[in-house]
Amino acid sequence: MAKRDNIKDMLIAPDLSNTTLTRSVSGVDHNGQRSEIAVVEERPLTIFLNSQEIVTAMTIGDYPDYLALGFLRNQGMLKESDVVTAVDFDEDLETVVVRTEVATNYEEKLQKKTRTSGCAVGTVFGDMMEGLDGLTLAATPVKTSWLYSLAHKINRTPSLYLEAGAIHGSCLCLRDQPLVYMEDVGRHNAVDKIAGWLYAEKQRADDKILYTTGRLTSEMVIKTAQMGIPVLVSRSGFTAWGVEIARQVGLTVIGRMRGKRFICLSGEDRLEWDMDPDLVIDDPKTSGRKGAAQ
Amino acid sequence: MAKRDNIKDMLIAPDLSNTTLTRSVSGVDHNGQRSEIAVVEERPLTIFLNSQEIVTAMTIGDYPDYLALGFLRNQGMLKESDVVTAVDFDEDLETVVVRTEVATNYEEKLQKKTRTSGCAVGTVFGDMMEGLDGLTLAATPVKTSWLYSLAHKINRTPSLYLEAGAIHGSCLCLRDQPLVYMEDVGRHNAVDKIAGWLYAEKQRADDKILYTTGRLTSEMVIKTAQMGIPVLVSRSGFTAWGVEIARQVGLTVIGRMRGKRFICLSGEDRLEWDMDPDLVIDDPKTSGRKGAAQ
Repeated sequence: MAKRDNIKDMLIAPDLSNTTLTRSVSGVDHNGQRSEIAVVEERPLTIFLNSQEIVTAMTIGDYPDYLALGFLRNQGMLKESDVVTAVDFDEDLETVVVRTEVATNYEEKLQKKTRTSGCAVGTVFGDMMEGLDGLTLAATPVKTSWLYSLAHKINRTPSLYLEAGAIHGSCLCLRDQPLVYMEDVGRHNAVDKIAGWLYAEKQRADDKILYTTGRLTSEMVIKTAQMGIPVLVSRSGFTAWGVEIARQVGLTVIGRMRGKRFICLSGEDRLEWDMDPDLVIDDPKTSGRKGAAQ
Repeated sequence: MAKRDNIKDMLIAPDLSNTTLTRSVSGVDHNGQRSEIAVVEERPLTIFLNSQEIVTAMTIGDYPDYLALGFLRNQGMLKESDVVTAVDFDEDLETVVVRTEVATNYEEKLQKKTRTSGCAVGTVFGDMMEGLDGLTLAATPVKTSWLYSLAHKINRTPSLYLEAGAIHGSCLCLRDQPLVYMEDVGRHNAVDKIAGWLYAEKQRADDKILYTTGRLTSEMVIKTAQMGIPVLVSRSGFTAWGVEIARQVGLTVIGRMRGKRFICLSGEDRLEWDMDPDLVIDDPKTSGRKGAAQ
């Protein structure tokens, strides 16, 4: 009942009935006995922007449309002003093509950049940093009672993580309510799928909170800021550069959120301490967050 | 004492005396109190092969030479037969240049590929798969007592993970002895640094075991196989494609290794069950593996 309560108000929750996301695999255990376990899928998905092949992502394979849109948005290849005319997913070819009304200038830009830098990996990262210039994030207040409530609900939501492990989760939240809970094998895919959902569904980002199981690294901080989400929360830890960028762009980052404990290393001005931490029930050992998705 | 015993026989252990790898960062905790925590560094390192810029990796910054060599080896850009004449690291420019006696054909190859596929991310991955054709991994036997001993020693080794969290670890082992223990913020950098060590120090790979804190994904499996290491062990879980590739190349993969438990989903023929699991002491809660490096 409690678990059902957690997901009934979500717009997108992990879909455990989708049998294409996990596979039963047979092996031998520590006693030498045959054993079957559920293992998450991981498949290539090649993303095109019009006629231009952009990247091959490794993904569990749900929401290829949101993943493609979110990836292109987060890389700055698809602007707010671009009009998307179609998103065509071909399951057999493992491709998704995002079509825009007017051809974007990304193709030309990419060719110019790859000529000078040799590999798009660095280029793309450079572009991501560029997008942060002049960015202002909303002064949305965050009550600590919401944070505790979100962590509690998300940790207890039935998920692929609890079923099969080895997967990351990200959840877009409004106040104390988880709204869109995405999981993926790729560290950033879960976040990109949320970015794609925001873009496709024309939803506001400035009043939202992003919760992630992953570490608060520079890339995660940059993506959150670029999406216009002012608050990023994780049960995991920080990197120094992640904190530095968060402070530069005024993003609130809260990490090591476990039970009653958390630490905020940037943007503490948004926090409202409305909850006595001593009244927070510590996560039971059975909550299942075993840290397997490393 | 026990901890010192763990590292005294290691060739490379985490260097907690290196103050450039972590930074003390100030924030506020769940009680609204000022709090200082140690946070791992994350800095860009641009890798060049001769005059060709290849990639900008995000790294904690130790062993840039091993990281560059290992990355180039694992991407198939540097062949076993290439003669490396110099590895020049420039701390101010945040670059490392690997120079070879004869110019490699990678520059030409890269230009051709980027013209057709647009982004080197997919290309590089394609190349990695190519390197697995005709690969045969050694039939090195693995005693389960070694696995328990390795997990016990590695989990108790003083590390950046235990000090600051948010970091991945990989450890190259021989039988029950951890030899080279690398950590890094980048999921694959720790493994690439081990590959670089193997290459630079001209060490055998076919009698080794690779232990990682990370998930057993396709990329991790491919890298391990390409390095010629026949056994990959993790406390974390699997992806289905990782298991599939491991079976194709005959790599032994053992996951979910915690306390007395583990499961082997590929290459079980190398295993020798010489230890009664009931005699294994379960990991105490205080061993500090809190799963923060997700």
